[in-house]
Amino acid sequence: MTPLDETHDPTRKSWVESANDAATDFPIQNLPFGVFRRADSDESFRVGVAIGDQIVDVVACSEAGLLSGDDALAADRCRHPGLNALMEAGPEAARRLRRALSDLLRVGSSVFERDPAIASHILVPMKDAELTLPAAIGDYTDFYASIQHATNVGSMFRPDNPLLPNYKWVPIGYHGRASSIVASGSGIRRPLGQTRDGTDGPPSFGPSRRLDYELEMGVFIGSGNALGSPIPIDEAERHVFGLCLLNDWSARDIQTWEYQPLGPFLAKNFATTLSPWVVTVDALAPYRAPAYRRPTGDPAPLPYLYSHDDTNSGGFDISLELDLSSAAMRDGGMKPLRVSTGSFTEIYWTVAQLVTHHASNGCNLRAGDLLGSGTVSGAAKESRGSLLERTWRGTEPLQLPTGETRAFLEDGDEVTIRGYCARGEDGRPRIGFGECRGRVLPALPAHASAV
Amino acid sequence: MTPLDETHDPTRKSWVESANDAATDFPIQNLPFGVFRRADSDESFRVGVAIGDQIVDVVACSEAGLLSGDDALAADRCRHPGLNALMEAGPEAARRLRRALSDLLRVGSSVFERDPAIASHILVPMKDAELTLPAAIGDYTDFYASIQHATNVGSMFRPDNPLLPNYKWVPIGYHGRASSIVASGSGIRRPLGQTRDGTDGPPSFGPSRRLDYELEMGVFIGSGNALGSPIPIDEAERHVFGLCLLNDWSARDIQTWEYQPLGPFLAKNFATTLSPWVVTVDALAPYRAPAYRRPTGDPAPLPYLYSHDDTNSGGFDISLELDLSSAAMRDGGMKPLRVSTGSFTEIYWTVAQLVTHHASNGCNLRAGDLLGSGTVSGAAKESRGSLLERTWRGTEPLQLPTGETRAFLEDGDEVTIRGYCARGEDGRPRIGFGECRGRVLPALPAHASAV
Repeated sequence: MTPLDETHDPTRKSWVESANDAATDFPIQNLPFGVFRRADSDESFRVGVAIGDQIVDVVACSEAGLLSGDDALAADRCRHPGLNALMEAGPEAARRLRRALSDLLRVGSSVFERDPAIASHILVPMKDAELTLPAAIGDYTDFYASIQHATNVGSMFRPDNPLLPNYKWVPIGYHGRASSIVASGSGIRRPLGQTRDGTDGPPSFGPSRRLDYELEMGVFIGSGNALGSPIPIDEAERHVFGLCLLNDWSARDIQTWEYQPLGPFLAKNFATTLSPWVVTVDALAPYRAPAYRRPTGDPAPLPYLYSHDDTNSGGFDISLELDLSSAAMRDGGMKPLRVSTGSFTEIYWTVAQLVTHHASNGCNLRAGDLLGSGTVSGAAKESRGSLLERTWRGTEPLQLPTGETRAFLEDGDEVTIRGYCARGEDGRPRIGFGECRGRVLPALPAHASAV
Repeated sequence: MTPLDETHDPTRKSWVESANDAATDFPIQNLPFGVFRRADSDESFRVGVAIGDQIVDVVACSEAGLLSGDDALAADRCRHPGLNALMEAGPEAARRLRRALSDLLRVGSSVFERDPAIASHILVPMKDAELTLPAAIGDYTDFYASIQHATNVGSMFRPDNPLLPNYKWVPIGYHGRASSIVASGSGIRRPLGQTRDGTDGPPSFGPSRRLDYELEMGVFIGSGNALGSPIPIDEAERHVFGLCLLNDWSARDIQTWEYQPLGPFLAKNFATTLSPWVVTVDALAPYRAPAYRRPTGDPAPLPYLYSHDDTNSGGFDISLELDLSSAAMRDGGMKPLRVSTGSFTEIYWTVAQLVTHHASNGCNLRAGDLLGSGTVSGAAKESRGSLLERTWRGTEPLQLPTGETRAFLEDGDEVTIRGYCARGEDGRPRIGFGECRGRVLPALPAHASAV
C-alpha cells in the first residue's frame, strides 16, 4: 500500500476553486487520469487529469515548462490518445506526476502565485471537453468476485446448488470482449440473438427481451508481467494503475441459451461501458479497508493468494450507486430512480488476488488491460447490482415514478453508475469516480442480418 | 467465393525454382502472407509472402518500382510489423497484391526476364528469416465448431448428456486471451494452477499434470464491422482475410476445476501457438468443399446463419496432421509420431457462420482479430484433435517408439501441426500452411508465486 504523503493531506486546497467544493468528485486529493480533447475540435486526444470542474492538460503543463526531469518525461507519455504509455512506465512515474500536479495545483503553489495566468494555459473546462476511453484495452477479463451475486444468480439457475464448489477457492473469471468497450455516454444498441422460451422447442432470433446492466468496478493494469512470469500476491498492487466504474451490459435471455458449456459470449460482448476517469491506487490510499471477512467455515485462500495485508488494506472502501431513468421520466422532468446502493467492500476476492490469480499460470497482463470485478451485490435487496437480482428474474418488477414498471431494461432507459469514497470524520474529502452512463437504443431490424 | 483466375492456374510455374517442387507448401498458387525480418538483424519486422523456400519482401518490391498504383499503396501497408494495415484495406487490396505478385513471380514475367537480378533484391531465404505473429491481435475468440469434439468431451464430462441442447443451433464460442498468443517455435511453459483430485477435499496449487494440445484452424478477420452492425451471412467471407494453424494449449486438470460456471480461463490463457503464414481465402478458392452434411433430424440453421452457398462451398478441404516427439525420441534420432490426421471439413459450422454469428448481436470485429475453430476431431480415433480425446482421458495412453507412453504431455514434448490442401487430380498443386510448432518447458517452481 502507498504510504500517505502530502498529496493526501485533507487540509490541502487548490487554487482551482471548484476542487474545494465538498460535493466534487475531484478534489486536489484525487487527480484521476483520463483522455480528452476539446469537444468539436480537431485536436488529438491526450491525457488529462480531473480537478474540480476542470481538466489539467498535462502536455500543456509540460510545454509551459511547469514539469521537469522525470515528470517531463512522464508528461511526454501523455501525448498519446490513451494512458498505455504512462501505465507502462511503472507505478513510480504516475505517482510522481500526480505529486507534481498536486504541488502545482495547490493553494500556495509558487508557480501559480508568480503567474496566475497559467490557469488559462493548462486548464480545459470539463463542460467543453470530450472524454474517451482511458486506454487502448488489449485484453479485458471479467471476474465474478461478489459472493452475494454468485449466490443470487446461482440460486436462480441452479436452485439446488447455488454456489459451485470452486467458488471459495478460485477467483472465477472469464475473458470478455475488448473491441466493444465504449466510453460513458455512448448509446447501447439492444442486441439481437438466439433465445428460447421454455425448455423445449426451437430457439428464435430477435431482439433481446431481457436486457440488463451489471454494476461493476474496473481495474486497469499498469505495468505488466512477462509471459510465463507470475505476479506474487504482495507485488500485485504495483501492477494496478487504478480503478474506474464499469457497466457490463448483459442480455439474460441470450445468456441462458448460449452459456453452456463455455460461458457467456454474445450475451455480453455487444457493449461494456467504462467511466472516463481512472482513480489511482495512490489516491485511494486513505480509503483502504479490510478484505471481505470470510464467514467461519470458509477456507483460507491458498498460499499463492494469501496476503498478510488483507486484514487492514485488502479492500477499497468505495460506495456505489446506480440510477435508472426511463424516457417518460425524463420527458416528465423527473429525477432518476436510485435502484441500487452498494459497496465495493462486498467482494469476496481482493483486487490483488484477482491480479495474482490471473497471472498465476504465467498469463501475461499488459499495460491497459482491464479487469472487471463482476457485479457488486450485497446482502440487502437494495444493494443488488443487476436487474436480474434486483427484480428477482423479473418476478418483482421495479415501480418507476411514472407508473411504469421494469423487469428488464426498455428502449430509452438510461443507466448511470456512480462511485465514491466518502468524506471521513478526520476531514478526508470525498474522492469520486465521476459517472458511467449509457442509454438503451432500439434494436436494428432483424432482417438486416438475415437472408 | 472468389472466382478462379490466372493466379489459380495449375500450370503456372514460378522462376523461384523451389516453388515448383510438388512437395512445397508454397507454390505460386498459394502466396500466403506473414511477418518477417532477417534473423539476428536489427531490421524491422514487415510483411512478406512465402514462395517455395523464399520470402518475397513486399516493401522491397515496391521500392524497386515493381509495384504500381493500388499495389504500391497496398505495399506501403506492408511496412508495418503486422498485417493489420493491409487487412483494414479490405479484400480487394490483398487480392490485387497477390495477383500482382503472382504475375511478378511467374515464369515468363517480363520484369524478371528483363532483369533476373531482381531476385536478390526482393527474396529472403526462409532459412535466414525470423517469423513472428502475422498480426497484432485485438480480440481472440475460440469456437467449438467440431461436433465430434464436442460430443467426445461432453461424454467424458457429462456421460448422460454429452451434447448440450444448444449445440446444433448456436455456434458455441468464448473469448480467449490475445496477449499470450505466440509464434510457432516459442517454448510453452507448463502452467501452475489450482487442481483438485477427486470430488472432495481442498484443491492444491502446482504444475498442471494434464497438459494437452488442441488442433485447430485459425481465422484472421480482414476488414471489420462497426459496433452495432451485424454481418449478413452472404457477406461474411468478405471479412475473412485468411486461415492459419492454431494450437490451443490446454491444462485439463485446471480446466475441470475452474470452468464452471463461466467457462475456461487459466486452463487456456497461458499460451496459444499460431503458424506464421496466413493463407488467403482467395488462394483456397479451388479447394472449397460442401459444408458439413448435417444428419437427418438435425435442425437447419436459423435464417441468419443460412447460406445457399453452403452446399458447394461452405467448407474448406484442408487436411490436418499432428506430430509428437519426446525429448528421448529426438535424442535417439527418431522421427516424430503421427498422432492425428484430420480434416477441416469435419466442422459443423462454416467459417462464414462463425463470423456472422459473432457479429449477429452487433459485436464489432476488427482487422487482425482471430477466431479459432475449436479442436477439429473426426469420427475416427486417429482424427481426434486433442490428447484428451486421443487417449480417452488418459485411459488409452499413446505408445511412443522409445517405449515411453503418453496420457498427457510431458516436459520436452514437441507438438507440430501441419495443414494442406491436397494436390488435385486436375493438377491443382498442394497448398500448404507451413507448421505450427511448440515444445513444453518445465514449470517454474511454485514458490515463485507463493508467500
